[in-house]
Amino acid sequence: MATPAPPASTKLRGILTPNIVPLDDQGRINEGELRRYVDWLIAKGVHGLYPNGSTGEFLRFTVDERREIMRIILDQVRGRVPVLAGAAEANTRETIRACEAYYDMGATAVAIVAPFYYKLSPRAVYAYFKEIADNTPIDVTLYNIPLFASPIDVPTVQKLALDCPKVVGIKDSSGDLPHMIRMIQAIRPHRPEFSFLTGWDAALMPMLLLGCDGGTNASSGVVPEVTRKLFDLCEAGQIAAARDVQYELVTLFDTMIQSAEFPDGFRLGVKLRGFETGSGRQPITSEQQGELTKLADTLQCLLARHGFTDSPHSGCDPAARPTAHSLLTTLAAPVSVAPRAANVALSEDQLTHIVQSVLTELGQRR
Amino acid sequence: MATPAPPASTKLRGILTPNIVPLDDQGRINEGELRRYVDWLIAKGVHGLYPNGSTGEFLRFTVDERREIMRIILDQVRGRVPVLAGAAEANTRETIRACEAYYDMGATAVAIVAPFYYKLSPRAVYAYFKEIADNTPIDVTLYNIPLFASPIDVPTVQKLALDCPKVVGIKDSSGDLPHMIRMIQAIRPHRPEFSFLTGWDAALMPMLLLGCDGGTNASSGVVPEVTRKLFDLCEAGQIAAARDVQYELVTLFDTMIQSAEFPDGFRLGVKLRGFETGSGRQPITSEQQGELTKLADTLQCLLARHGFTDSPHSGCDPAARPTAHSLLTTLAAPVSVAPRAANVALSEDQLTHIVQSVLTELGQRR
Amino acid sequence: MATPAPPASTKLRGILTPNIVPLDDQGRINEGELRRYVDWLIAKGVHGLYPNGSTGEFLRFTVDERREIMRIILDQVRGRVPVLAGAAEANTRETIRACEAYYDMGATAVAIVAPFYYKLSPRAVYAYFKEIADNTPIDVTLYNIPLFASPIDVPTVQKLALDCPKVVGIKDSSGDLPHMIRMIQAIRPHRPEFSFLTGWDAALMPMLLLGCDGGTNASSGVVPEVTRKLFDLCEAGQIAAARDVQYELVTLFDTMIQSAEFPDGFRLGVKLRGFETGSGRQPITSEQQGELTKLADTLQCLLARHGFTDSPHSGCDPAARPTAHSLLTTLAAPVSVAPRAANVALSEDQLTHIVQSVLTELGQRR
Amino acid sequence: MATPAPPASTKLRGILTPNIVPLDDQGRINEGELRRYVDWLIAKGVHGLYPNGSTGEFLRFTVDERREIMRIILDQVRGRVPVLAGAAEANTRETIRACEAYYDMGATAVAIVAPFYYKLSPRAVYAYFKEIADNTPIDVTLYNIPLFASPIDVPTVQKLALDCPKVVGIKDSSGDLPHMIRMIQAIRPHRPEFSFLTGWDAALMPMLLLGCDGGTNASSGVVPEVTRKLFDLCEAGQIAAARDVQYELVTLFDTMIQSAEFPDGFRLGVKLRGFETGSGRQPITSEQQGELTKLADTLQCLLARHGFTDSPHSGCDPAARPTAHSLLTTLAAPVSVAPRAANVALSEDQLTHIVQSVLTELGQRR
Repeated sequence: MATPAPPASTKLRGILTPNIVPLDDQGRINEGELRRYVDWLIAKGVHGLYPNGSTGEFLRFTVDERREIMRIILDQVRGRVPVLAGAAEANTRETIRACEAYYDMGATAVAIVAPFYYKLSPRAVYAYFKEIADNTPIDVTLYNIPLFASPIDVPTVQKLALDCPKVVGIKDSSGDLPHMIRMIQAIRPHRPEFSFLTGWDAALMPMLLLGCDGGTNASSGVVPEVTRKLFDLCEAGQIAAARDVQYELVTLFDTMIQSAEFPDGFRLGVKLRGFETGSGRQPITSEQQGELTKLADTLQCLLARHGFTDSPHSGCDPAARPTAHSLLTTLAAPVSVAPRAANVALSEDQLTHIVQSVLTELGQRR
Repeated sequence: MATPAPPASTKLRGILTPNIVPLDDQGRINEGELRRYVDWLIAKGVHGLYPNGSTGEFLRFTVDERREIMRIILDQVRGRVPVLAGAAEANTRETIRACEAYYDMGATAVAIVAPFYYKLSPRAVYAYFKEIADNTPIDVTLYNIPLFASPIDVPTVQKLALDCPKVVGIKDSSGDLPHMIRMIQAIRPHRPEFSFLTGWDAALMPMLLLGCDGGTNASSGVVPEVTRKLFDLCEAGQIAAARDVQYELVTLFDTMIQSAEFPDGFRLGVKLRGFETGSGRQPITSEQQGELTKLADTLQCLLARHGFTDSPHSGCDPAARPTAHSLLTTLAAPVSVAPRAANVALSEDQLTHIVQSVLTELGQRR
Repeated sequence: MATPAPPASTKLRGILTPNIVPLDDQGRINEGELRRYVDWLIAKGVHGLYPNGSTGEFLRFTVDERREIMRIILDQVRGRVPVLAGAAEANTRETIRACEAYYDMGATAVAIVAPFYYKLSPRAVYAYFKEIADNTPIDVTLYNIPLFASPIDVPTVQKLALDCPKVVGIKDSSGDLPHMIRMIQAIRPHRPEFSFLTGWDAALMPMLLLGCDGGTNASSGVVPEVTRKLFDLCEAGQIAAARDVQYELVTLFDTMIQSAEFPDGFRLGVKLRGFETGSGRQPITSEQQGELTKLADTLQCLLARHGFTDSPHSGCDPAARPTAHSLLTTLAAPVSVAPRAANVALSEDQLTHIVQSVLTELGQRR
Repeated sequence: MATPAPPASTKLRGILTPNIVPLDDQGRINEGELRRYVDWLIAKGVHGLYPNGSTGEFLRFTVDERREIMRIILDQVRGRVPVLAGAAEANTRETIRACEAYYDMGATAVAIVAPFYYKLSPRAVYAYFKEIADNTPIDVTLYNIPLFASPIDVPTVQKLALDCPKVVGIKDSSGDLPHMIRMIQAIRPHRPEFSFLTGWDAALMPMLLLGCDGGTNASSGVVPEVTRKLFDLCEAGQIAAARDVQYELVTLFDTMIQSAEFPDGFRLGVKLRGFETGSGRQPITSEQQGELTKLADTLQCLLARHGFTDSPHSGCDPAARPTAHSLLTTLAAPVSVAPRAANVALSEDQLTHIVQSVLTELGQRR
């Protein structure tokens, strides 16, 4: 019997990692590595886990495997952090059964992606989530990923938030800032505890600054230190430092998402951090396999620059991206948690002003 | 043990119905109605069946239910017509298992949709089908439906056709005429027996005239007489009559596809033809339920005009579409199967010419 | 003073060439070559001309140049074929002025593209054309090209056809067959003389077979023999021969549209037919210039295969596309308007019609 | 002779208003109102003007009118603020002529939209801007608005920035945050004075926080106080207050952009601020006119809430949006540039910087 996760009444906040699942050389779930990976993520500071998401390739596992993944992770986490369980199945009946199973296993809440393959209208999307929310024992987070599934528009999210107490948040992977603003405007006044999470790593900082409660970001499975630091810097209002981190995160994210079939770039990143991830379940051509090997070098150089790995044996081209920063210092520096009201990025003018103030002060003291 | 279907060496031709699955009031497969529906479709002249397609909502059934649907249909068909089995599962391993199962059950071939949810590159689409085709005992038809799944582009289809003897055809639901021409140009010279099927009912006639071997059309599950007639008219080169049928088919198709969540309009159509289809598995709002009731009247009037049902009790507005044709006469008239070389649509000029010839002949005989 | 073109009361039918404009080495209109090109097109059998269209790069000429192009062409045509004048200007007032000018010059009708750059709603598109149609002396053809301009949807075309007698047709470049069917269904019963023209060469044959009156096809400026032959074959119902021509047309069209910035591939094709076209007005990189040179060889080989040019000095790769047809025989063979009548497969309706005609004729002779 | 604008060597920063052009009841440029509007915008704090942009409907004016608009505005501004002149014409030759004319008139720089109507490849977009930049006397800002024109991708912007000294900035209206980050990463290290401006009002705050130098925002023509305040708050790092303003700006922007054809909602907004804007040049239906009247009330209530206008005579529904904020207090409060220095949360780097500065200064004094 698993230890219960933190109560759902706690608002979902922070960076929840949509973890990949290590596989053995037969393509089966590698339980040992999965457990070791979970411990590592928690140690690196992620606020929670989100198994069976898009990054976790939920669709490429069988029903039984999805349950097994949840069982392993919840057993390993043992309540240390919240766990958001991807629970979409073939139809509402099967999805509700999965919700019940994950509730019994001790998950904090479930995340359910909007119906995919068929492109449903907003009303059908509403009916789908309403049916589930009315018949589940566990809290539900909506999952909007219009690139892959039927979009959940603002009026639909609002109506679900107002009609369904069990619906406690939304994970939005559209990366659309104004869309996020419109959702928060529509819901937060009525449901202040409703959680808004972003799934688009390349816009994490602006999303957080605009009011998001956190993110479920594939990058956090590879560089959990970076996404956690970015979250903390945004919380502390350290804009200039946060911007540096966001810029480097875009480079890392782009490298992992654009150079291979999703989520193979992230699987590779996890491997470079020291885990036996195995190959993904989607077959690739030998040409693609060659590109993946090349990507491994590029990515390792990127990760090495920030101190996350050693450089590859073949070395890294120092001229490749001369303007690139290393986050070594930024990551090492503590985030000063100051009163939020005072969060500012200092301009040259402000720095001058401070220097003048200090000098004046010194002058007066003499 | 099921009777084997016709050998796969026979090229897939004609209209194969992507049948819906009747459900009982508990949402379970209604085996009796499914068997009755299969018999009716065959009696009405469809050339084959295509269970577990998009219209068949394969994704909303469980793995076991999909097998059960195939078992029932193959048992009922007993080799009278070819059966193309939708066989996509969670990953290549599971899909290959489904292929084996359907082969053992006696299916003619399988149809496998390109990977969906994730948007894969052409190379990954190739690798996916290659892996399956190399490891399956049954012939495979590719299924391209870019609206719902990763697109299969022309070079990928060509490469699969050249590399994989087990790949024997493609069902294309893009409705893109030039795309179909490019595919046929690329493959037919090398694989003359490769089958090209269209899944876009609104372009069925031009697709057939341009060289398609047939279609897998949702409409054929509702008005099998119409799609069969259209196929025969195109075969016989009776362009003017085929055009009339195609125009009415567009009206029927639009009504069923645009007024409800797909495939609920087609499910409704099957019900109007006299089958207990039950409700679909995707929940809908009460507002949508009301619209479905209204659609039932509109659709019944359309079907009644062509003699497929009685008019609804509430009657039909005669002014609703005064220019609409009835296909009653066209459907009743036999299609004259003449030597293909002579297939022509007669223009006024030609008619005049014939009349003159007859008159001349008559004059000479006197 | 130009000779008036054929009266607009004649329905626009056949292939109208959206001609490019030859430029001299200063980038100015090359009047001599333009006149020679016009004569050649008419000699090759195009049914009409359509200057200042998308292929004619209307947008890259000044207001004065557009008028000059029309003046030259109308003066050269001298009423031999209808001329459809592209007349879109900065706003409705300027467009109406252009309509008046082209009316005075003797154009048959104008074609006006839907508002572009801004994406307007259907209602605004309606208001735009209504304002113009109510204030112009010349017949107006709507021009729908959703790839480049605000789309004109079916209800908008229908409403304009019903409300505006001056609107006499639509040129549709969407290539969407069902869309064309829906337009014809909505309008032809009320306005049988309304003209439907297609601008998508890769679907010309099916469009004609489904009821289009003709096309305005960029390819017809390069291979007017091919598009004219295709039109005649469709008219005569010679499906098999038409299909061969359509397939080759797709290859030619794809080569010209996909290998260079539009419409540079067509400009190149016209040059290969023997005209000093000059370079287009859109600058290109030296890399693109190199590709254009390479395209010239490919295109020349294609054209040579059908007997339209000599092969390039560098020769053509016979293995390049071994399955390709030559249209030499097809183009040389006369289209049989009725001679095959003896073998014709007649429909019941057609037989009845013939018998009735004979009986009537006999009755009148007695 | 107009007073020269500030030298182009000054980096373009802040909010530049893409102003609409008031028209009289004949649809002609209303010079008096245009001059009064320009003075009002400057008085309200906009940092510059951007005539003949998309909001300014450059495409609906004639060549002569565009020049006239520039002449009036530059004469009225008389160097008080920078003026960025929209200069796109029919082709590169005409565009270069416009650049020369605006240079002579004293414009600060020009903005040139990527080629529209035709969808050009990145290479052709490069060639287009290169040709212009090599032949113009005035600094050039690229204008990327993929919704309306050929997109300018990151490698193209980078190449233009490196190859063309005359290209001094980009206005990007995509609203895509990661895209902006990638552009800044690619160019700023090499061209620190290159200006990045955003044209998507709904993402103004995050764009500024991520490193944009300013914006050219249609909203700034209606509520210049709001966009200026938002800019100042972002500069000062007052995140919480900036967020409140951004949220209200989204509401205002959405109201103006979604309820009417663009840019009629903004034209209406300017009218509500007290200017005789006249009607736009795009005709609208009477139904649309009715909706515009209704929008006027909605918009006036929104503007009244923030103190920009009186409420409409018909009153405003207090229940309409109970959660809405008024910006009255926020706008009235001065932005604290440094006074809060005592409470500032400093990063390690900043503290080090200050200490170093103080020590240096002390060392020099001794």
